[in-house]
Amino acid sequence: MSDRAPVTGAGRPIDLRSDTVTEPTEAMREAMRMAVVGDDGLDGDPTVRELEAVGAAAMGKEDALFVTSGTMGNLVAALVHAGRGGEALVDEHAHVARSEGGGISRLAGLMCTAVRSHDGMMDLDALAASMRGDYSRHGAPTAMVVVETSHNHAGGRALPLPYLAAVSERARAAGAAVHIDGARIFNAALAQGVPPAAIAAFGDTVTFCLSKGLSAPMGSILAGSRDFVVRARSYRRMVGGGLRQAGCVAAAGLVALRDMLGRLADDHRRAHVLWASLRTPTPALVGNAPDTNIVLVHLGASNPGGATACAARLSARGILVRPRDADTLRIVIHRHIDDDAIRVAAAEIALATGSEH
Amino acid sequence: MSDRAPVTGAGRPIDLRSDTVTEPTEAMREAMRMAVVGDDGLDGDPTVRELEAVGAAAMGKEDALFVTSGTMGNLVAALVHAGRGGEALVDEHAHVARSEGGGISRLAGLMCTAVRSHDGMMDLDALAASMRGDYSRHGAPTAMVVVETSHNHAGGRALPLPYLAAVSERARAAGAAVHIDGARIFNAALAQGVPPAAIAAFGDTVTFCLSKGLSAPMGSILAGSRDFVVRARSYRRMVGGGLRQAGCVAAAGLVALRDMLGRLADDHRRAHVLWASLRTPTPALVGNAPDTNIVLVHLGASNPGGATACAARLSARGILVRPRDADTLRIVIHRHIDDDAIRVAAAEIALATGSEH
Amino acid sequence: MSDRAPVTGAGRPIDLRSDTVTEPTEAMREAMRMAVVGDDGLDGDPTVRELEAVGAAAMGKEDALFVTSGTMGNLVAALVHAGRGGEALVDEHAHVARSEGGGISRLAGLMCTAVRSHDGMMDLDALAASMRGDYSRHGAPTAMVVVETSHNHAGGRALPLPYLAAVSERARAAGAAVHIDGARIFNAALAQGVPPAAIAAFGDTVTFCLSKGLSAPMGSILAGSRDFVVRARSYRRMVGGGLRQAGCVAAAGLVALRDMLGRLADDHRRAHVLWASLRTPTPALVGNAPDTNIVLVHLGASNPGGATACAARLSARGILVRPRDADTLRIVIHRHIDDDAIRVAAAEIALATGSEH
Amino acid sequence: MSDRAPVTGAGRPIDLRSDTVTEPTEAMREAMRMAVVGDDGLDGDPTVRELEAVGAAAMGKEDALFVTSGTMGNLVAALVHAGRGGEALVDEHAHVARSEGGGISRLAGLMCTAVRSHDGMMDLDALAASMRGDYSRHGAPTAMVVVETSHNHAGGRALPLPYLAAVSERARAAGAAVHIDGARIFNAALAQGVPPAAIAAFGDTVTFCLSKGLSAPMGSILAGSRDFVVRARSYRRMVGGGLRQAGCVAAAGLVALRDMLGRLADDHRRAHVLWASLRTPTPALVGNAPDTNIVLVHLGASNPGGATACAARLSARGILVRPRDADTLRIVIHRHIDDDAIRVAAAEIALATGSEH
Repeated sequence: MSDRAPVTGAGRPIDLRSDTVTEPTEAMREAMRMAVVGDDGLDGDPTVRELEAVGAAAMGKEDALFVTSGTMGNLVAALVHAGRGGEALVDEHAHVARSEGGGISRLAGLMCTAVRSHDGMMDLDALAASMRGDYSRHGAPTAMVVVETSHNHAGGRALPLPYLAAVSERARAAGAAVHIDGARIFNAALAQGVPPAAIAAFGDTVTFCLSKGLSAPMGSILAGSRDFVVRARSYRRMVGGGLRQAGCVAAAGLVALRDMLGRLADDHRRAHVLWASLRTPTPALVGNAPDTNIVLVHLGASNPGGATACAARLSARGILVRPRDADTLRIVIHRHIDDDAIRVAAAEIALATGSEH
Repeated sequence: MSDRAPVTGAGRPIDLRSDTVTEPTEAMREAMRMAVVGDDGLDGDPTVRELEAVGAAAMGKEDALFVTSGTMGNLVAALVHAGRGGEALVDEHAHVARSEGGGISRLAGLMCTAVRSHDGMMDLDALAASMRGDYSRHGAPTAMVVVETSHNHAGGRALPLPYLAAVSERARAAGAAVHIDGARIFNAALAQGVPPAAIAAFGDTVTFCLSKGLSAPMGSILAGSRDFVVRARSYRRMVGGGLRQAGCVAAAGLVALRDMLGRLADDHRRAHVLWASLRTPTPALVGNAPDTNIVLVHLGASNPGGATACAARLSARGILVRPRDADTLRIVIHRHIDDDAIRVAAAEIALATGSEH
Repeated sequence: MSDRAPVTGAGRPIDLRSDTVTEPTEAMREAMRMAVVGDDGLDGDPTVRELEAVGAAAMGKEDALFVTSGTMGNLVAALVHAGRGGEALVDEHAHVARSEGGGISRLAGLMCTAVRSHDGMMDLDALAASMRGDYSRHGAPTAMVVVETSHNHAGGRALPLPYLAAVSERARAAGAAVHIDGARIFNAALAQGVPPAAIAAFGDTVTFCLSKGLSAPMGSILAGSRDFVVRARSYRRMVGGGLRQAGCVAAAGLVALRDMLGRLADDHRRAHVLWASLRTPTPALVGNAPDTNIVLVHLGASNPGGATACAARLSARGILVRPRDADTLRIVIHRHIDDDAIRVAAAEIALATGSEH
Repeated sequence: MSDRAPVTGAGRPIDLRSDTVTEPTEAMREAMRMAVVGDDGLDGDPTVRELEAVGAAAMGKEDALFVTSGTMGNLVAALVHAGRGGEALVDEHAHVARSEGGGISRLAGLMCTAVRSHDGMMDLDALAASMRGDYSRHGAPTAMVVVETSHNHAGGRALPLPYLAAVSERARAAGAAVHIDGARIFNAALAQGVPPAAIAAFGDTVTFCLSKGLSAPMGSILAGSRDFVVRARSYRRMVGGGLRQAGCVAAAGLVALRDMLGRLADDHRRAHVLWASLRTPTPALVGNAPDTNIVLVHLGASNPGGATACAARLSARGILVRPRDADTLRIVIHRHIDDDAIRVAAAEIALATGSEH
């Protein structure tokens, strides 16, 4: 088997690095071409407005704002919530803390404190101990608590609703805002069999992405109360997210929300297939069954070169994956990964991790 | 969706508020539909890369970055230049100070000091007096000087090259960066009969817009040295300007730079026609001939209600304009304003300002 | 170490650069030596508490905070008021904008916008036009308006109470806080024949200095509502102003407020004498009679070398003064300047400015 | 024994909460009274200059700056080092992250990332993995690494010099600055039998406190290269740490450095006595022997009410201590704690923790 080149996609690699690689569908491209547009900095762009309305409704919030990225959504939320001063409390592996360039501190001015956490979830006692409800010699009161679901670093974990409820309760008791980094909230909702608004209800504000599994070329939605969105709009402009005829891209986002939600189930199913086929020979290679579209592969300490070397070996075989950390690969399933690709990837991963039988 | 300019008198208002209202052309829409794209956050998007290369070449800079707006371009430049600490020196009516939400201070942390200025140009003695070349008890050294050309508030004034040279010389002597807010640098270049790179050469970094006269739906370019762009890329991501399949919009920018530069001359010509027809009966109504595509209309102190009331009267007649300040209207010519529209607008403005003959 | 003012002509220069050069009195040194102290970061220091109470009472505010400098008082006020986002509006020559290192922007994140002003007073129409009462595409609402009285750059001008009332009214209508930079508020109050609290009443918050005319070695008071001071205390610690046995210096501040207020009249009287003796031969050399302890000397355009050269000539003659700008000297009277020193200084200044008769 | 009131200090409680409660000595008070002073914002204060020179020499650095607190020293260092952008890496319990109000983020704009750590020391692999040497899509390069020695939260641990060397090497390889929060660096140096400069050599910059064990009423020293201090001076003014006749307090600092270093050995000895007397009956109550002047008391899980309740019981008996966390008391020995106080405290703590025999 070792000489075979990957078959799927006629020589094109199987790209499991991220669901952000998804390209817009034909329907999206057509919608972008035909979009009715206006000057969103002046009168408002009708297509953007429609997308914001649909996005707000999906989250069960009063209003919403189209932003160019999830990072911008999280940053703008932080800028609004930072008005109270203080600190942001996040889990140890939160995307907002580890992968957004430090904007939450550099730009929004919040000390970003990682609360001891496991599997994407903060320890609730540690959270409570870190929370400040008022001004004191230790600083301003806690400005916001961020929860991320599904949780990227935790392998696409859909955080249990009781956990979200507990965080929300503690935060509200201290007067802190809860922001949900729901970049993949539709994956979480699907996994939990609830509408996304049932998750978003635990947050004052929520960001979700139109790209990733939903395949729009760019853009995210930031939703919250009407008053919040008024403030967020002002900060969006400040960070450079005020666009002109943005309907051109918002149109793709509307297609994403209309056509693509259903297909996330395919990604979840395929992630499960991959997980199962890796698990059978070598249970230790994977943990619990994936909640959503991400599979973590835990290389044993004996694996030579760790995750970086393993990813390189796979790359040479046409399988693109990314190390999550020194000993773990992160594999993300998306629209361009079909059943054949899963089969090939499973075999190659088994080979590269030395777990084939 | 048509390439045609709106037919004057067909009930659609003549919109002279800004050139930002321009809609993408048919060719742009087609290019967006057909764009070859990639994940710009991962491998780079080929269309974005092409646009960045074309943009850098147009400015005569080593490299460039696609950003979602001019505000983002200016902000990212400020974030990079702010590494030195200190202050930004700007003219009294700089867009970066007055119309970008305060991001230069709130986000980049720069004290933004307006230098006494006239017609968009800082007084050079006042500039020199405000400049600090080193750390002192007055604060950190000057981080950057911003010049805006063509200058929005000054009625589209193309700042004379000797002025730019003088600013540049003083800034460099003090070790401060010069950033050119060239949102409409192509208008300035056309008016001055020089390539835009001849203007951009006075700056370390430069932003220009693909929307406005060039009609792309959104997006700007931030250009500078290779080292600057590496840093700018990092800050772009921080502010949320890191996109995914951004080739979808960059494609329109490429069309703008390929097809639309030539047409700016029409806007300039029409601005001149409008100016001349307002000037004949009432010379005081307008100042010097417009350099580019913006005409300022100076209402006499006797005009009832000032600019706000006058704009409202014009709006009721289907002519949309914006007050620049209490006594001045700002009129911007762009692709959707044809010769007929100019004739109608001239007559209506003469009427509304009480200067018809 | 003596309480005596330096003997004029005994070789020691007559230092008219600033009233910040005043040394602590014998009584202050004794009070510092004997101060009852505590850990102000833990239980509170009793002498600091007493000073804060006396300071709050003098300003007619609910509570107050001892800070190490006027700059810290202004910065902490800005940090608290910045919670609303937005902008600070100041007069063109405000100390907080020009001489505090840019902390209001770099640290508190406020765009600091200079409103057109004259004689230390903002143009009220321009102020109103710059004020934003709410979030908009132009940015967050105005966070605070700063007024400085007596006004350093305006030659110690005690800003008229109706002006302060008008600023206060406009600010409150827009929901913005008014902060009074009252570094020399006791000088203003004396000049206006009102208690300082009558001035402070126009501000939500006020800073005043214990050094300068009051001669304490260091320290200022920041006063405001009880709720404001709770927040300010938290920010004071953040900027490093939380001290330990600070009663050692607060004790001098208590002496300053107990013993030194009366003596400001001497400074005012001497400033008037100096002004009158300069004015008699050359009226153009000085403007209106000084309100307080600062005299501006306006060098004619014909003066060779301007203010810098003139200050150097005076320095060589044992008279220390500072240029305020290219054509103006600023002269400050304080406890170490007696009647003899005024006589000598008047003669030397007349000589150095070519206005002797 | 249970009815006896604490004997030491005639009814005054035995205050083991912190060494910050130390009051100035008679010699300090006398020095403050007699201090030769000047305007440190203008010509420099001679006593401050002397203290800065002595402080720089003690740290083996080119220059130094007098600041009002350790928090200000750390903040100013962060502001200077933040010029590079990026992130600060600190241990999980660093004072700069947990107890300075978030200024490192709110004011200096640094993301403050806690590296997995034990006993005050960061895991060196985790540190290396968190370090960024250059601009990337993950953000700006690491701005600084902070090490704290002796380490407050870790019970006064003097961090081993090989550890400091390893941190320093990794940081320098990545171009990041090393800042030593040496609030109690003299305690660490004494414990390690090296001059403090041997510790400070591992940092580019270092802060130490004149209060705490050295008993000055307030003030700290921030030392580094000449160029660093020029910048730091500018930022010190910005945060409000520019003082006037600061020699009044600097004089006490000079006495502290002249007279008080030797006496730290008494604190260390007494801490050891307390530790030993707690350990004999109940070894689990304390860990390893204290390095310096801090003893941690680990309450078993069985202790009713945890550290808060235990501290309250002790307080009722005249022994003041502070919980470090839910299960641990922190006890700090200082100049006001004599051998008798140690004996009484040991007995009371044994009683309150249920470990008396």
